Amino acid sequence: MMELVPVIIGVIALAFVQFLYYSVSREDAGTEQMREIASYIQEGANAYMKRQYTTIAYFILALAVVIGVTRGSLSALSFLIGSGLSLTAAFIGMNAATRANVRTAAAAMKSPGKALRIAFWGGAVMGVAIVGLSVLGIGGLYAAFKTILGGAEEAALEAIVPFGLGASLAALFAQLGGGIYTKAADIGADLVGKVEVGIPEDDPRNPAVIADQVGDNVGDCAGRGADLFESFSDNIIGMMILGLAFMTKYGEAGVLFPLLAESLGVLSTIVAILLIREETDNPVKTINVALLTAGVLNAVAFYFLADRMLGDPALFESAILGLAASLFVGLIVQYYTGTGYRPVRDIADASRFGPALNVITGLSVGLESAFLPLIVISVVVAAAYFLAGLYGIAAATVGILSTTGIIMASDTFGPISDNAAGIAEMSGLSDEIRSSLDVLDAVGNTTKAITKGYAMACAVLSAFVLFAAYLQSISSGGSAVAIDIGDPYILVGLILGGTLAFLFSAMAIRAVGRTASEMVAEVRRQFREIPGLLEGKAKPDYAKAVDISTRHALREMIPPTLITLAAPILVGAAFGVKPLGAFIVGGTIVGGLLAVYMINAGGALDNAKKLIESGLHGGKGSDAHKAAVVGDTVGDPLKDTAGPSLHIFVKLITIVALTFAPLFL
Amino acid sequence: MMELVPVIIGVIALAFVQFLYYSVSREDAGTEQMREIASYIQEGANAYMKRQYTTIAYFILALAVVIGVTRGSLSALSFLIGSGLSLTAAFIGMNAATRANVRTAAAAMKSPGKALRIAFWGGAVMGVAIVGLSVLGIGGLYAAFKTILGGAEEAALEAIVPFGLGASLAALFAQLGGGIYTKAADIGADLVGKVEVGIPEDDPRNPAVIADQVGDNVGDCAGRGADLFESFSDNIIGMMILGLAFMTKYGEAGVLFPLLAESLGVLSTIVAILLIREETDNPVKTINVALLTAGVLNAVAFYFLADRMLGDPALFESAILGLAASLFVGLIVQYYTGTGYRPVRDIADASRFGPALNVITGLSVGLESAFLPLIVISVVVAAAYFLAGLYGIAAATVGILSTTGIIMASDTFGPISDNAAGIAEMSGLSDEIRSSLDVLDAVGNTTKAITKGYAMACAVLSAFVLFAAYLQSISSGGSAVAIDIGDPYILVGLILGGTLAFLFSAMAIRAVGRTASEMVAEVRRQFREIPGLLEGKAKPDYAKAVDISTRHALREMIPPTLITLAAPILVGAAFGVKPLGAFIVGGTIVGGLLAVYMINAGGALDNAKKLIESGLHGGKGSDAHKAAVVGDTVGDPLKDTAGPSLHIFVKLITIVALTFAPLFL
Repeated sequence: MMELVPVIIGVIALAFVQFLYYSVSREDAGTEQMREIASYIQEGANAYMKRQYTTIAYFILALAVVIGVTRGSLSALSFLIGSGLSLTAAFIGMNAATRANVRTAAAAMKSPGKALRIAFWGGAVMGVAIVGLSVLGIGGLYAAFKTILGGAEEAALEAIVPFGLGASLAALFAQLGGGIYTKAADIGADLVGKVEVGIPEDDPRNPAVIADQVGDNVGDCAGRGADLFESFSDNIIGMMILGLAFMTKYGEAGVLFPLLAESLGVLSTIVAILLIREETDNPVKTINVALLTAGVLNAVAFYFLADRMLGDPALFESAILGLAASLFVGLIVQYYTGTGYRPVRDIADASRFGPALNVITGLSVGLESAFLPLIVISVVVAAAYFLAGLYGIAAATVGILSTTGIIMASDTFGPISDNAAGIAEMSGLSDEIRSSLDVLDAVGNTTKAITKGYAMACAVLSAFVLFAAYLQSISSGGSAVAIDIGDPYILVGLILGGTLAFLFSAMAIRAVGRTASEMVAEVRRQFREIPGLLEGKAKPDYAKAVDISTRHALREMIPPTLITLAAPILVGAAFGVKPLGAFIVGGTIVGGLLAVYMINAGGALDNAKKLIESGLHGGKGSDAHKAAVVGDTVGDPLKDTAGPSLHIFVKLITIVALTFAPLFL
Repeated sequence: MMELVPVIIGVIALAFVQFLYYSVSREDAGTEQMREIASYIQEGANAYMKRQYTTIAYFILALAVVIGVTRGSLSALSFLIGSGLSLTAAFIGMNAATRANVRTAAAAMKSPGKALRIAFWGGAVMGVAIVGLSVLGIGGLYAAFKTILGGAEEAALEAIVPFGLGASLAALFAQLGGGIYTKAADIGADLVGKVEVGIPEDDPRNPAVIADQVGDNVGDCAGRGADLFESFSDNIIGMMILGLAFMTKYGEAGVLFPLLAESLGVLSTIVAILLIREETDNPVKTINVALLTAGVLNAVAFYFLADRMLGDPALFESAILGLAASLFVGLIVQYYTGTGYRPVRDIADASRFGPALNVITGLSVGLESAFLPLIVISVVVAAAYFLAGLYGIAAATVGILSTTGIIMASDTFGPISDNAAGIAEMSGLSDEIRSSLDVLDAVGNTTKAITKGYAMACAVLSAFVLFAAYLQSISSGGSAVAIDIGDPYILVGLILGGTLAFLFSAMAIRAVGRTASEMVAEVRRQFREIPGLLEGKAKPDYAKAVDISTRHALREMIPPTLITLAAPILVGAAFGVKPLGAFIVGGTIVGGLLAVYMINAGGALDNAKKLIESGLHGGKGSDAHKAAVVGDTVGDPLKDTAGPSLHIFVKLITIVALTFAPLFL
């Protein structure tokens, strides 16, 4: 009967998603002009997603055939369901965001508290859809496969592994495509509009402004959503497999624990979201209370599950350790990228000496910022292992991931507020309304820092849990396999994994560089060739900019994804399962380090620019500001394309290995 | 008797160094003005080196005491000799370079062939001093310790390990200090002089110009020299230790092979250097013939040693594999950083869209360039292991390192020609002379690309050989130790090593950023406050700029070095020898990848600027050129400070572990 709990909670979550979606949609969408602009964004985003999903579908179908042939039809089915649910969750969430943005702007005209609720609930559609569909999908498949296969847990889980592969593959496409789209548009809009022509951000005269707004939705919203759907799902699957080895100790409860813990986490998320109401005069506090509530409820759920169901309180301690670690990593990220601390101030100071020293300082901040988070993760891994063995490490990860729903809600809240501010600017709303939206935007920046640290910790720890599952799947008849780094072939595996992470990042960054160059050329052309554009007498050709981002994103998302998919298979075929294990570890460690470096370098450079815009070193228009804009642009593809894509990269290589390992045994 | 061969060859090498030094010093040093400028550079470089060595000496002496207490007095002695010889070789080489530069410029007034010979022979002082002092030191200590210890090879080698530690520690100080010095001066001179004020490179009105020239010597010359002295020495020591395990197969010849092979390599180097004569009309061809001669002679020596002395032709094949790999890596580096290929052209093209897209493209080229060299190294490791086991991997490394002398000579040739061109510019020599020096400078750029790939391959492979020696030293009574990455503590070790490489790079880059900011402020101040400076009526205060570089370099080289020294000891004490082994591997792989990324990103950005200066996209003074100057500056600390220092970092963590491992067993 326990197997049905996730399914029931999943259905409740979907009903709640529907409730949130309609309660946001019911709100007033503002003036005629606001509706028009919002419709451009919504149509642009939907049109892009449709084309992106069509492209992805071909690859999914082709791989489903391969999986069906090599692993059987149940595996192919779960692969299709995993990728389908990932894309569905991201689409529902993004669609809600494109409805919430304009309604947030409209609500800001009346009540800041209402604007907060709409933006947060709009983001919560994404948060709840992700965790709800994940527990529904995995829980449903597990219950169904167990029945079909006559109660065999191991065989059922083996057939579920491709669910994770589907989720990861879809996520990597979505994150890369969305990331290339949004950053090329952003860079094109900024470099020509803000720097060369000197018009404000989100100015309707800028030909790339709609592409930029669309990008926020298809990149930040849909991309991040797909990322966390797969972290969440992969982790549940990995730990369930790990649970098989602990069945002598915990019984089937060891297999069900992650699924049940995350399902209860969905309920806590729903409760926490309902705490966000309209009567507020302090948005930061309101959101913090919601986050805290979710955390405390999850802790209670863990205690109940660990102590009562599994009879092992050490697992509770490990899970709390995981929760604490995600908090620490969030604080570290905030230190390195927040405007109130030394690193960002150093970058702003260096901007006085030109763009080169701004970038140099930003890169060094990013590199340094990779140190402490990985130390925290190391401590958690070592301590959880000490407390409760391998299963303890997995429990720590479950602890982190249980807050995925509420974290994702506050993260999606960011682009919604950002979009709302953009719509307000483009529709010429009053300064008062815009400044009340700027408050929300600032809140969004704080929650974003936490989410980024969070996503990183999730990605690396999930990859390690998957790696543990991999080790278990290649061990022969219960005896563990040693992967000895004294063996040169193992060293080679580590090197290959590490070097692939570099190649992958290079391809992602290069794609943005190429697309942005074309965008800059096009925006320059429009300003030059369309008479009256700068004076506001003529309309720019928005569609042209949208087209550049779309074409490039769809084309350039493919090669890095295929390489990530093919490399583990090639390494496994050439060297066997042990060097493949080393390949995973090398890719995860190097990929994780590069991701923190890039995401924080970009975040710090971005905020150094904002710090100068707030009046430091001459403020907007000063030489220091111009230098900081260069740095911000350099950071763009690092923080929003390569960095987040690396999170998916580390899990995809691992789950590919897990899926195809039987072929190399 | 065999033990005396390295000692004899070492003495021959020193005599040859003396011959080269005096034959260069005897040459004409040009006009009064040239001598004056050269004396500034020479005095500045000597003054800095004196202060740097004094600072280093304190640390060396303190650590010698620790080593004496924990490992005995022979170990302390060999530590002192190792660090002393490293510093001596670097100093002799640099001193010769500061004499050769002005004489090269003077010779260029008469004969281009003569200028080539002086520059090359001046560089050869460094090349031969390094390899000569290394084989003399290690060979001498081995012979002496064996006698003292009554013929025990293992005990003798154990006492020699700290020789490598001394060499590595001195090298890291020298490379970091020199790297910070040179890049801060370079950036200060370029950003204000070239970009803001608009005067040419090496213009005597620039207050940072002398500091810049001094920097070329203390950074590029002395720093790289210390780097290769330690690669060369560490590798010999590592392979000799490895040879202990193969004594049943090869006898003591297995221990002596690396020492003898490298000693014969010294003789080949001397022969090749003597081929550089004055009658030449094609400098590239002349140098290529010398490199080829050294390579062929070394191959013959290997064949003789492997086949006749050890009776194992597979070792010859492995060594040839190593030689071939260093060539391949050089070609790959040339592809990614040469002006004739796609990557650098892409960066130059992106410069049309501003500095941000120039830097983005440059960073992606750097990241991508880490892929293929590491694939080549992986192939060599796997193939050599397949051919001749662990000893085969070491033999491949010996193959690469046997050309150290001649490679180092061609590398030091670069800064000498660069300095010669600078002195010619500052002394107002005719355009004709300057253009003949520019030819040499261009040759220097080609040889530099090869050297960089070479140094990288050496560093990573030497670190792996040391790691193999480490594994052997921690194995108990002949049975090998397995370091299983399935063990979470091992994973933690890998992560800690990787993340330390990021912290280390961050500190190195940040140090340059800070120093360069102060330099920019000072140069701006002098142009503003010294009346008549820009018109050439007043002299700048060179000493002030020299002082800024000196103070910062001496201070900022300490923290990264101490962290590198302390980290392996802390990891060993906290987790034991196996996680420490993983720590080394994590640090080596991540450090190696970061080094290639940084060195090639910087090299490619530098050459993109040069490509534009040659006339592309508007040439000097165009917007594209300004963008490319920003990118070049961003690349400076990456390619000349953090990148090369990482080469030493990877070996230092390993040799620290090797030295102190007995404490953690």
